[in-house]
Amino acid sequence: MVTPTPDFVGYPETPAIVAATGTDRWVTVTWADGLSARFHHVWLRDNCACAECLLPLTKEQTFELDPAASPSLDGQPIVEATGALVVTWAGDRHRSAYHQGWLRAHRYDGAAVGARAPVTWDGSTPDMPPTFDGTAVLRDDDALREWLVALRDVGFTRLRDVPPRPGGVGEVAARIGPIRETNFGLLWDVRSEPEPVTNANTDLALPPHVDLCTREYQPGLQFLHCIRNTATGGRGRYVDGFRVAAILARDEPEHYAVLTTQPMARANRSRDSDYRWSVPPIVLDARGAVAEIRWGNWLRAPLAVEFDQVERVYAAAACMTAVAARDDLAVHVDWQAGDLLAFDNRRILHGRDTFDSAGGQRFLRGCYGEREELHSRLRILDRRIASGR
Amino acid sequence: MVTPTPDFVGYPETPAIVAATGTDRWVTVTWADGLSARFHHVWLRDNCACAECLLPLTKEQTFELDPAASPSLDGQPIVEATGALVVTWAGDRHRSAYHQGWLRAHRYDGAAVGARAPVTWDGSTPDMPPTFDGTAVLRDDDALREWLVALRDVGFTRLRDVPPRPGGVGEVAARIGPIRETNFGLLWDVRSEPEPVTNANTDLALPPHVDLCTREYQPGLQFLHCIRNTATGGRGRYVDGFRVAAILARDEPEHYAVLTTQPMARANRSRDSDYRWSVPPIVLDARGAVAEIRWGNWLRAPLAVEFDQVERVYAAAACMTAVAARDDLAVHVDWQAGDLLAFDNRRILHGRDTFDSAGGQRFLRGCYGEREELHSRLRILDRRIASGR
Repeated sequence: MVTPTPDFVGYPETPAIVAATGTDRWVTVTWADGLSARFHHVWLRDNCACAECLLPLTKEQTFELDPAASPSLDGQPIVEATGALVVTWAGDRHRSAYHQGWLRAHRYDGAAVGARAPVTWDGSTPDMPPTFDGTAVLRDDDALREWLVALRDVGFTRLRDVPPRPGGVGEVAARIGPIRETNFGLLWDVRSEPEPVTNANTDLALPPHVDLCTREYQPGLQFLHCIRNTATGGRGRYVDGFRVAAILARDEPEHYAVLTTQPMARANRSRDSDYRWSVPPIVLDARGAVAEIRWGNWLRAPLAVEFDQVERVYAAAACMTAVAARDDLAVHVDWQAGDLLAFDNRRILHGRDTFDSAGGQRFLRGCYGEREELHSRLRILDRRIASGR
Repeated sequence: MVTPTPDFVGYPETPAIVAATGTDRWVTVTWADGLSARFHHVWLRDNCACAECLLPLTKEQTFELDPAASPSLDGQPIVEATGALVVTWAGDRHRSAYHQGWLRAHRYDGAAVGARAPVTWDGSTPDMPPTFDGTAVLRDDDALREWLVALRDVGFTRLRDVPPRPGGVGEVAARIGPIRETNFGLLWDVRSEPEPVTNANTDLALPPHVDLCTREYQPGLQFLHCIRNTATGGRGRYVDGFRVAAILARDEPEHYAVLTTQPMARANRSRDSDYRWSVPPIVLDARGAVAEIRWGNWLRAPLAVEFDQVERVYAAAACMTAVAARDDLAVHVDWQAGDLLAFDNRRILHGRDTFDSAGGQRFLRGCYGEREELHSRLRILDRRIASGR
């Protein structure tokens, strides 16, 4: 019998299960290499992957746990000759089988659960940003995967030799997934304009920021492609916002408490759109880990917090401004035609020096994407590697 | 002198300022109708709207507060003959003017700050869903605005007589802003298919859910347009997830604590994409208000929480399942060709009865958008009304 699994590929570790014993609340499983883990009955029942509980074509459940009942075993669990675990449920005598590799990959007893902490960087980190061959990324899945792992983990990467044509940045982004359209369009240009609707399209310096922090959903990925650069100045400056947050948490706990709880208002007002959002500049997830950085000083809207908090919020924001501006945290990048920078727009602060728009042309074209598409693409590329394509 | 403002329109209340006095930390302003409010120096300095501090074309700041210094006044504030407030800053003697209506609209001293609490609904709420004329919404801005206010506040609306052509739903969504593209495309179909990649495209019943809770960014708006319906069954069932959360917070505080802090894993696996995300089913913002509901029982991935939390999470999820299934909370909707339902996909749980795909055709076409585009569009429509167009 082939044990059903909810996934499309195999699992990294597949020692056979050699023992399984049930109590009234869980099953203890031991694999051939001696590792043991407990799995609650309710968890096992929930994860039955048989064709009756999980529609094979969609890999989505049709089974729902009965809110009024707790699953319990009918007799002791069985270990199959294949190394899989099989249990029978009291009541309906439904039978569930679990692949040894699947159980191993999803064990939660004593294993670390939750997201990995990201490895952050600063101006002294060598070989920044990680740089890849854009031509290869466009046509080769192994090159694509190597780049995407760096984009996920470092959050800041460069491709060289992306053809400096107007659609080049879109072709690269489409290697990951759908482009996120905004009021700026699918693809947008960064160049000095006579009637700019954003400071990005002036020749002004831009302090460290993320894009579109004025939205409820700030895009997760940003792509910037240099099509032409003959201007003087305008050097890019990149800072790991997660490092900024870690420094603030360690050295400035009082400011950090404010920056993670008090909303700061941001606005992006133009003739045809008016985006405003209020959220703390350092957003934590439900477990207190940093989920995203929202920082864009020239998009400040009037702060709207309790009267007694106003000066505390300004003091905390000043502290964050000072840390984000620290030279030792910054990686500097000069633009050459064909360069494409891709970065996590909810983690990395980017900025630029002023440039001389009279002395030459500077033409960047960009677009946005989402982190979730990056994660999905990497899983699909990993599947292809695991299955030998 | 015209007092500069950072906005494109006037303000709802514009009594003149009649008195202003400064202390070492704030300015107390009194308007002609007797209302008073204090504004901190740092807040006032930050919000200077002069052409030097705020680029008039972009309405974005070029001024940055000096992280090392606190702004203080040079002398007492002045009230202009126009009713505006004018202050001069110590040090650089920069002069800032504030329109009386702008200050009034942005006062934070004693005024309620933060988002309004949403008004929730259940199955006994009359006239649900609020229903509008789709033809009018497509061509008339007043009709558009009326619909969008309901979509923002009630979170669940219906349009009638949207032309049942394949692009109809996209035309309606484009009245708000960009469509959110996903792996399902820009526009997607809900109909029974021979090889479905999602349970939505079977004729199975669907329990209450939001769409794409497997993503880090679950779309904020969903549009579903009925192009044809001759099938039997498949009645829609809509529940206000914010009401579900409020009931759980009031009646089941222990479960609510689990549902707002313990992540539940969701997965949407297919041959070409693999989306997974773990987040509590009730997401709170930094101030503890409910920001969004993430619920989709048939997209359960293996729960990955601490061993000692597993049974608590299942018990809390069972409780939420039971509340979401309560008949007294549900609004039922029958589909007619031309109907379009638009709802907040991060608030409203939708589901359907099973239908008989052999007995007729049921063809819905849908797309996604974002809440932030709705808010922006409403502000622009309000501006046009305020300026008499």
